[in-house]
Amino acid sequence: MANFALEPSIKPSKPLALTLGEPAGIGPDITIAAWLRRRELNLPAFYLLGDEAFVARRAKALGAGIRIASVSAGEAAAAFTEALPVVATGESATAEPGKPDEASAPAALASIRQAVADVREGRAGAVVTNPIAKSVLYRSGFRHPGHTEYLAELAAKNGRVPQPVMMLWSPRLAVVPVTIHVSLRDALAQLTSELIVSTVRIVATELKSRFGIERPRIAISGLNPHAGEDGSLGHEEQTVIAPALKALRSDGIEAKGPLPADTMFHEAARSTYDCAVCMYHDQALIPIKTVAFDDAVNVTLGLPFIRTSPDHGTAFDIAGTAKANPASLIAALKLASRMAAAQS
Amino acid sequence: MANFALEPSIKPSKPLALTLGEPAGIGPDITIAAWLRRRELNLPAFYLLGDEAFVARRAKALGAGIRIASVSAGEAAAAFTEALPVVATGESATAEPGKPDEASAPAALASIRQAVADVREGRAGAVVTNPIAKSVLYRSGFRHPGHTEYLAELAAKNGRVPQPVMMLWSPRLAVVPVTIHVSLRDALAQLTSELIVSTVRIVATELKSRFGIERPRIAISGLNPHAGEDGSLGHEEQTVIAPALKALRSDGIEAKGPLPADTMFHEAARSTYDCAVCMYHDQALIPIKTVAFDDAVNVTLGLPFIRTSPDHGTAFDIAGTAKANPASLIAALKLASRMAAAQS
Repeated sequence: MANFALEPSIKPSKPLALTLGEPAGIGPDITIAAWLRRRELNLPAFYLLGDEAFVARRAKALGAGIRIASVSAGEAAAAFTEALPVVATGESATAEPGKPDEASAPAALASIRQAVADVREGRAGAVVTNPIAKSVLYRSGFRHPGHTEYLAELAAKNGRVPQPVMMLWSPRLAVVPVTIHVSLRDALAQLTSELIVSTVRIVATELKSRFGIERPRIAISGLNPHAGEDGSLGHEEQTVIAPALKALRSDGIEAKGPLPADTMFHEAARSTYDCAVCMYHDQALIPIKTVAFDDAVNVTLGLPFIRTSPDHGTAFDIAGTAKANPASLIAALKLASRMAAAQS
Repeated sequence: MANFALEPSIKPSKPLALTLGEPAGIGPDITIAAWLRRRELNLPAFYLLGDEAFVARRAKALGAGIRIASVSAGEAAAAFTEALPVVATGESATAEPGKPDEASAPAALASIRQAVADVREGRAGAVVTNPIAKSVLYRSGFRHPGHTEYLAELAAKNGRVPQPVMMLWSPRLAVVPVTIHVSLRDALAQLTSELIVSTVRIVATELKSRFGIERPRIAISGLNPHAGEDGSLGHEEQTVIAPALKALRSDGIEAKGPLPADTMFHEAARSTYDCAVCMYHDQALIPIKTVAFDDAVNVTLGLPFIRTSPDHGTAFDIAGTAKANPASLIAALKLASRMAAAQS
């Protein structure tokens, strides 16, 4: 990823729409912490989709003396320097830090819906989402498998839901798992040539359109140890992955593999590709969380808008204590801004 | 592994027995390269089990002006400062660099057998093995699954073959995979509580006896993403790994887990344990090869003697060219020496 710097040379003209996330989690905390460092880190303008009273209560709990500006999305960029811009969603959150409460679920969901509407209708440059707590939403009647799937459904056009692709990005390494939040046994069952091809096509397209990489180089892992060692340690490399690579190369995509996963991620190896596409969750997540634990960003590719999010959960145990580290949210804001600039 | 430095405070009294490995590979090259740096790196005394004429030919091909001393194991330590000690096995190697030839297989095998005899009979402090080429040995009639299994058979006592346990060690991270060189599908089938327990017992015993860690802290990974997320992403954590942990703790072993594998290997996490025991090959090998690509050492635990080896293969493409990096062999020699000192 050497040719994609986090510091944008051009600032996007539109602010970023930042969702509230789970109100009882650390989302509000890291939002306030990130805004406080806006000048020092030259952060792009963003606004929080929430309610002013809730944000003011959390700021007080954190001992953060901040100004909050209740604005419209169109006024957010101008307000950002002097105050944390909050755009009302019409739903207020009441949950206390660390005490999730389904009564606040409508506020979390309204924030996501409004962020998608803002970016699709041109009021925001990208969506950045704070972490949600699926279990809390489920208790309130939420019926989607997760945050990303909900965003994909909100992005549906003529009834067609796009295939969202999860990328974990850092300045040192970007990875995409082909199968994601399923057991390892189910990952083996779900892995097909078609899934690899459709995933890598999306990765290649967006590395070009949203990361500005003219000719993306994609490294594709094997599934088995030593990438199967010519079939002696498993056959999926020959029966599933090689046919996918053939199809991708005939599309003109610069994809190499299947590579032994253990030797793909040291510093010299990382410099030979722009993104590693891996067969299952841990194969992709182990290396990036090893080399970029604090500042990896979750990026959803495949949607008709840019969406990034911090690569961590709600951390209920430290919500409201000012202990949460805003590094991953800060990286998510910077990356979203950089992607918006590359796209425009 | 912070409490186990690579620089020994006490030098072991016996030299290390270094095997020839595959004669057509880089084993002889890195042996010569390591010996040339013996003073600069304060290397422990070692001797090569091979034949003087072969080593002299390779040194000439590499343009390395070295003295070779044809000695007995007992004379090796004294000779080491001024010459590369070579102890004859009675089998001579003829293969040219990069051109494996089964006619040299007897030399490779004699070297391994003699190293084991030397360490078991007290002439050597540890065995360090250069990489072999299994396919070449198979063509010559070798019938063991691999290098380590052959060593385990040579170590059999009263017909009982010990369970060898593969550890990859570096000053930054040590890992042990419970299942090793099998397909991912077979790894899932082979994983049992019993295998985890027998593996971790060996790890705990040897971290104490051979690494001098009084109370080893062992981190045990889950199998599935997020260690199964309370059963929603797979059940092996509950049905296979948790029972193993219970048995290990009742043995008095300080084992924690099952831990989500993706968050086990960043710098802060690594400082909380002495060894990570993982469920399958890539889960263990990805993190260590990401953080210690050049100087990870392969250590075989469970044998009645110390055995280390460089963590790479024969690299036929660069054999005889002086391009091979001796870093992993150097680390293997240092670690073997340190382990011998800790044990004595």
